[in-house]
Amino acid sequence: MAVATVKYLQTPTSPAWIEQAIANLDTILLDHSHCERKAAGVALNLMCRYPSNTQLVYQLTAIAREELEHFQQVNNILERRNIPLAPLPAPPYAAGLKAQVRRNEPGRLLDSLLISGLIEARSHERLGLLGENVRDRELAAFYRSLMASEARHYGTYWVLATTYFPREEVTERLEELATVESELLATLHPQPRIHA
Amino acid sequence: MAVATVKYLQTPTSPAWIEQAIANLDTILLDHSHCERKAAGVALNLMCRYPSNTQLVYQLTAIAREELEHFQQVNNILERRNIPLAPLPAPPYAAGLKAQVRRNEPGRLLDSLLISGLIEARSHERLGLLGENVRDRELAAFYRSLMASEARHYGTYWVLATTYFPREEVTERLEELATVESELLATLHPQPRIHA
Ligand SMILES: [Fe+2]
Ligand SMILES: [Fe+2]
Ligand SMILES: [Fe+2]
Ligand SMILES: [Fe+2]
Repeated sequence: MAVATVKYLQTPTSPAWIEQAIANLDTILLDHSHCERKAAGVALNLMCRYPSNTQLVYQLTAIAREELEHFQQVNNILERRNIPLAPLPAPPYAAGLKAQVRRNEPGRLLDSLLISGLIEARSHERLGLLGENVRDRELAAFYRSLMASEARHYGTYWVLATTYFPREEVTERLEELATVESELLATLHPQPRIHA
Repeated sequence: MAVATVKYLQTPTSPAWIEQAIANLDTILLDHSHCERKAAGVALNLMCRYPSNTQLVYQLTAIAREELEHFQQVNNILERRNIPLAPLPAPPYAAGLKAQVRRNEPGRLLDSLLISGLIEARSHERLGLLGENVRDRELAAFYRSLMASEARHYGTYWVLATTYFPREEVTERLEELATVESELLATLHPQPRIHA
């Protein structure tokens, strides 16, 4: 798994992102809430699209349950800080990745798994950066507590990819998608977001 | 809550449904699995559509988490019985109810909550019937164990409806939708399903 971890992301997050995030923690917290709900939705949609893929259904049920727990945890923090729940315009990141998904099977499944894995890997990296750099102790501890789950999640997506596809095909496609993922984050989005 | 319970369903399930279900338990189990996943999906979609409605988001997060737990439980039973996960054509019930949802807000929200409540109420009733009538003890106990959750779920949808709408409007619209719900189940669907 360690190798997969390193290979997943091609470019580390820029210091500019951290600065922007720290300066806009309320928005980052609200966006984080949306990210957790969306992560649960992505897992649920995949389970719905591949109902006969037993391992996929089992593993993604566990992920969806955890993401909903994270969602609840972030929402509790929002409530304690009097930050009201509200919609937030999404950054171009997720749509940019989704545009890479091939329309036909089995490519569609492989791309969906790898893109979900890349998003989880980036969450893992950035929540870790927040855990290191946020001054507020309660918040820093919360971010660190989520890191392990997100690491497990991208591990799961990687394992699922290699369950349904030859390892060589997985590695090759992952490299292509990881390049796009890094490109999408190359210029800092003007609005502070977890994935921007 | 007791009054709401009685009022929710206008017509009780026919003995013909129970007979059909008992004679096709494997299909009913597989369909039940899909129902639990779909129930989680419905809750998640509503949370996504009304991100500023705090009570709705809180309550539906709890429901979605429980439905995913039920989904896992049904899937464990399927596995122990060597029933492979597989897609199943949906009965016309859910689409028939969805067709009743008004296109514009705020009617869309009220109708969505009440229809979800009706589906939960029907699940509660039918899982109860299975709990009473299935000979297999393990299975009967499982169905009975889910009944309380489904009762809580329709209670939650009802409470959410009255959180966002005047009680009179809720009761009136519920009666209309409950009539449609009962009509949709008036003729037994040829394929055995939880909601058919
Ligand atoms: Fe998460
Ligand atoms: Fe995750
Ligand atoms: Fe359920
Ligand atoms: Fe339910």
